[in-house]
Amino acid sequence: MSTRLRNDFASDNTAGIAPEAMRALIEANTGFEAAYGADRTTARAADLVRTWLDADAPVHFVSCGTAANAVSIGAMCRSFETVLAHRYAHTIHSEAGAPNAFGHGLSIRALDGNDGKISTAALEAALRVPEDPSRQPPAVLSIANATELGTLYREDELRSLVEVSKARGLAVHVDGARLVNAVAAGFDPRSLRQRGVDVLVIGGTKAGMPASEAIVIFEPRIAHRFDVRLKQAGQVISKSRFLSAPWLGLLSSGRWIELAAHANAMTRRLATLMPFEIVYPVETNAIFVRMDTATHRHLTQLGWVTHRLAEASVRFMCSWATTEDSVDELGAVLARLAAEIDKPSRPVPE
Amino acid sequence: MSTRLRNDFASDNTAGIAPEAMRALIEANTGFEAAYGADRTTARAADLVRTWLDADAPVHFVSCGTAANAVSIGAMCRSFETVLAHRYAHTIHSEAGAPNAFGHGLSIRALDGNDGKISTAALEAALRVPEDPSRQPPAVLSIANATELGTLYREDELRSLVEVSKARGLAVHVDGARLVNAVAAGFDPRSLRQRGVDVLVIGGTKAGMPASEAIVIFEPRIAHRFDVRLKQAGQVISKSRFLSAPWLGLLSSGRWIELAAHANAMTRRLATLMPFEIVYPVETNAIFVRMDTATHRHLTQLGWVTHRLAEASVRFMCSWATTEDSVDELGAVLARLAAEIDKPSRPVPE
Amino acid sequence: MSTRLRNDFASDNTAGIAPEAMRALIEANTGFEAAYGADRTTARAADLVRTWLDADAPVHFVSCGTAANAVSIGAMCRSFETVLAHRYAHTIHSEAGAPNAFGHGLSIRALDGNDGKISTAALEAALRVPEDPSRQPPAVLSIANATELGTLYREDELRSLVEVSKARGLAVHVDGARLVNAVAAGFDPRSLRQRGVDVLVIGGTKAGMPASEAIVIFEPRIAHRFDVRLKQAGQVISKSRFLSAPWLGLLSSGRWIELAAHANAMTRRLATLMPFEIVYPVETNAIFVRMDTATHRHLTQLGWVTHRLAEASVRFMCSWATTEDSVDELGAVLARLAAEIDKPSRPVPE
Amino acid sequence: MSTRLRNDFASDNTAGIAPEAMRALIEANTGFEAAYGADRTTARAADLVRTWLDADAPVHFVSCGTAANAVSIGAMCRSFETVLAHRYAHTIHSEAGAPNAFGHGLSIRALDGNDGKISTAALEAALRVPEDPSRQPPAVLSIANATELGTLYREDELRSLVEVSKARGLAVHVDGARLVNAVAAGFDPRSLRQRGVDVLVIGGTKAGMPASEAIVIFEPRIAHRFDVRLKQAGQVISKSRFLSAPWLGLLSSGRWIELAAHANAMTRRLATLMPFEIVYPVETNAIFVRMDTATHRHLTQLGWVTHRLAEASVRFMCSWATTEDSVDELGAVLARLAAEIDKPSRPVPE
Repeated sequence: MSTRLRNDFASDNTAGIAPEAMRALIEANTGFEAAYGADRTTARAADLVRTWLDADAPVHFVSCGTAANAVSIGAMCRSFETVLAHRYAHTIHSEAGAPNAFGHGLSIRALDGNDGKISTAALEAALRVPEDPSRQPPAVLSIANATELGTLYREDELRSLVEVSKARGLAVHVDGARLVNAVAAGFDPRSLRQRGVDVLVIGGTKAGMPASEAIVIFEPRIAHRFDVRLKQAGQVISKSRFLSAPWLGLLSSGRWIELAAHANAMTRRLATLMPFEIVYPVETNAIFVRMDTATHRHLTQLGWVTHRLAEASVRFMCSWATTEDSVDELGAVLARLAAEIDKPSRPVPE
Repeated sequence: MSTRLRNDFASDNTAGIAPEAMRALIEANTGFEAAYGADRTTARAADLVRTWLDADAPVHFVSCGTAANAVSIGAMCRSFETVLAHRYAHTIHSEAGAPNAFGHGLSIRALDGNDGKISTAALEAALRVPEDPSRQPPAVLSIANATELGTLYREDELRSLVEVSKARGLAVHVDGARLVNAVAAGFDPRSLRQRGVDVLVIGGTKAGMPASEAIVIFEPRIAHRFDVRLKQAGQVISKSRFLSAPWLGLLSSGRWIELAAHANAMTRRLATLMPFEIVYPVETNAIFVRMDTATHRHLTQLGWVTHRLAEASVRFMCSWATTEDSVDELGAVLARLAAEIDKPSRPVPE
Repeated sequence: MSTRLRNDFASDNTAGIAPEAMRALIEANTGFEAAYGADRTTARAADLVRTWLDADAPVHFVSCGTAANAVSIGAMCRSFETVLAHRYAHTIHSEAGAPNAFGHGLSIRALDGNDGKISTAALEAALRVPEDPSRQPPAVLSIANATELGTLYREDELRSLVEVSKARGLAVHVDGARLVNAVAAGFDPRSLRQRGVDVLVIGGTKAGMPASEAIVIFEPRIAHRFDVRLKQAGQVISKSRFLSAPWLGLLSSGRWIELAAHANAMTRRLATLMPFEIVYPVETNAIFVRMDTATHRHLTQLGWVTHRLAEASVRFMCSWATTEDSVDELGAVLARLAAEIDKPSRPVPE
Repeated sequence: MSTRLRNDFASDNTAGIAPEAMRALIEANTGFEAAYGADRTTARAADLVRTWLDADAPVHFVSCGTAANAVSIGAMCRSFETVLAHRYAHTIHSEAGAPNAFGHGLSIRALDGNDGKISTAALEAALRVPEDPSRQPPAVLSIANATELGTLYREDELRSLVEVSKARGLAVHVDGARLVNAVAAGFDPRSLRQRGVDVLVIGGTKAGMPASEAIVIFEPRIAHRFDVRLKQAGQVISKSRFLSAPWLGLLSSGRWIELAAHANAMTRRLATLMPFEIVYPVETNAIFVRMDTATHRHLTQLGWVTHRLAEASVRFMCSWATTEDSVDELGAVLARLAAEIDKPSRPVPE
């Protein structure tokens, strides 16, 4: 048995550290440096993020996307208020209630919308409900771009959601765990500040770094004492240069866009080879397909790691580390599996 | 001016990553790996920690010592209870209320004791106060070893504190941010489980790793669903192998004890050269001295970074990266500064 | 216009204080008394509650049902766990996230079931979902009896839910805001302890008292330092005798069962007169009917106060203070309104 | 043995309900009324409070002073900030960490000052400490008037504290559990709004009501959704008219000032008879004296209930219900006890 997985399409966080990020990490490891974010590596990385976003805003690096979202949301929403998010939002399903805890009891209300994107109509409907002291009123809209389904908000869709939210006094949070994949697919990161987003979380981990996420606070009121907030949240590490160095490595060269473009391209390549029904538009680095349990189990037994969701669908995800060869090999395997399904002799899957 | 600090004695977290830790990090960066702690690197590192402690206990790696302490304490103490800790405890002074927040309102009560160590008498006095529903009763004793003052609990001192606590139903937390320095100074890490400590935090960062701390839960009742607790606390990172790899690198070779012994030895060397009054026993890697403001400012101007505390004292701290040369050079500088103080022409410091 | 509403069927909390409760309040107002629950009135009232439940359990009186539920649930469920409750539960819809806040981030998961009652099948399905650190696992089952829809769990239904919960390690909370209406309808209050319920909240307010609710803790582990928990929760009032006196007045005479039986009887009487479709079984003191918006508005204009719910239905609720005359008068009014609907000349409601 | 205590000087919350308050309670108990604060009694009582304070501000009635303080403070101070209060503040010593919990982890820092009053110098010193992300920075000043020691802030003292606080961006909270005693002693309640206080809690309980406290929010920003905040905090009771009716009874007649003046007068009368050393100025309704343990035990055995504090002093407190006769009788008893102390034959107290 090999010591490392080769055929992993389960997530973009099973990949390692991209070479440019690792190199920056090694370069940062010389001599002594001030701790707790006061180092020069962190200052330079924050500058790169600001330039990329065309925004003069505080940037904080933390080591966990769940924390980045949860602490941010906790800064925007009081315990007796609610956050509006898409029915499939990561904050609802995959963070063990972290926003609820960092928000001291806030709730998250699920909104509908096709392809993992909140529809303006759903948002407006939620905002039409009259306030009543016995219910937590909406205070924040939380949008993921790219979405949890790998789809992409167009800029006009985003603008519409932000405008409707702002008109009702809601703050807007963007979960950009895969923002770089969105950007590689054409989304302009500068539009976030321009449209009025209040807080943005940018995923470094899935972009090829070790654990590192950036919180960017466009709204000054929210920025007040955010450093103490993070300290209390257990998100200020002492050897901060190693959290920010990978950003230097990947942003200074623009390499992270290339890596995300590669992940997106591998995903499209896989989509063209896919013999199973694709459920959502393939716009960044994820494909969701319908696949019966038996076939999925067979695929897994053959050594291909993927993520099975409750609703009888399977997710394939590509990353900076996915190779053309592995995509083509997977395509061939899937073709064989699909062909077997149609054979009359195949036993009925349970 | 050099691009990296050379003469930093401010803390042991201004040093970089030790070579063995960096090498393990690089080795872990091959191929794909399961995320969220399910990887093999994490499993092996946890085994090494268990062996070192002679304890069959769950081990969780997190990226922040403040979080490690705060989440642990929050698991041991309810919001309407209190934690007993030394007057100089890190949890009281340097964590922005993180234990209070992760404990949802718990309080920390300061106990006295010489040289940064809680005295059994102070603990007993605190436990004699009758419970009253209008006050938060003690539920946890939190001990740091090595202490915030660089001193060391002897095993009999620790045993006494734990016994008194257990007799009254308190759980015991040990903040081992510098446990390896204590061990290098003779403390037996296996005594922690044997004495009945419930939760231990081991500092990896100060031992030569990038941000990495281990939480070890000796008490099974506290371990229940601790993985979900950490997830909600924003302390489960996806590329977990890079959090645990440094432990592999430093523990498998026993190198971290050698590095801590080096830090302790550099500190003793500095102590022998120290012309200023040393305030506390020098037992691990910190020296606290009395130094007037003007002299300290002069030292800083000469490029030597140290940490000044409110109480008119200055801390010198050595790490794995401190060199004999820098210690000797610092000793010479300090000798000159001390000599100047005694000169009659010296202006009175404000 | 009269200074007091006469025709209020909106809720059973718009009624005043029953005479026996008021008399006890006045009787308690002589001389000085120990504060914070140490008074003799409170001791006697707690004894009456224990006898009624055939349970040797601590009883705490608080002034708010929302708090009683929220603090209890917070004692049974940790922040990273979840509470299972019926889709229409008061804790989900009408408490502004109080359990989530007193539970520091816990979530409440909605279960299905006919007539406002959790079905054992729905509970079993929820418990079959495998635990995963990214999701909050169930720790508590919360049942209301009578339910929010005025229906009643039979004792075998309750037993089944409790058994399934206990087999999986869940604690069981019963919201008895209208327990006395359930008891007047035949439910045996002693079955709660016998079946293994852990914490019970009994509503005094809706039974004819001023603001007063009793928390009964059957499970000793949960009772530990519950007095401090309540103090921190802002639920320990100083002049406690006035919180408990109404319980003396109503329980010592058994009068509260008679009053609840009266409320239930008035409800059945109204049901027999009801010309609109009744949606759920009428088992205690609430009737839900389908009524179009225009008719409901007309009813309101005529001075009859009721509660309109989102789902195009209207709730009529009777209390200890509801009179036969007002029921009969309301019946006649409703008959006229229903008759008008069928007239061809009636304008179409918007 | 009598069924009610007669000689209670332990606190002003061991007294019952004043006749005017009880009468108003009984009068409010006619017919049906809207719940949750929407009733007319509550509207009228709130108007009376506003007039009394000369302030157009929202007024909320809750049933617990601890909750009133804690929820207010939680609205003014974020979890990673701190509240400055006097070393003897009720919020620090007697609320089981309620502000810490409702503030989700905020801390309270003790300030010094003679006679239970924060000195401007102590406040200024606390505000001079530079902010540091590892420590919770001050966000609120909390002042009690009358103080926990029964002393009184003069208006210029209050103005100075508020001005210094405002200049540094702190919000100001006033705990007026015994505000009416302060007013009866000459303090102008209208000065609170005029000086810039943000939130005021007025104690009704100690003024002769059953459990009832008023929260007045002068600062509009803090008032935003305070009703939902209170609902989530478990502080919105349904039969709200009975919470506000006592305010109608006591404020409409101005009777509560007379009652507080009576309590103050009884206290002064007792002070003139006091043979033990009085520790603090007697300015409202409390006297603190030095009394040895044996004498205090003797006093208690004779049926006189008082409150003994840790620091070898005893508190005598008068209320609206204290009679001249009981004061005089107590004076005589104390004189006898004091005389015995000087007798040579008296055994040494342990």
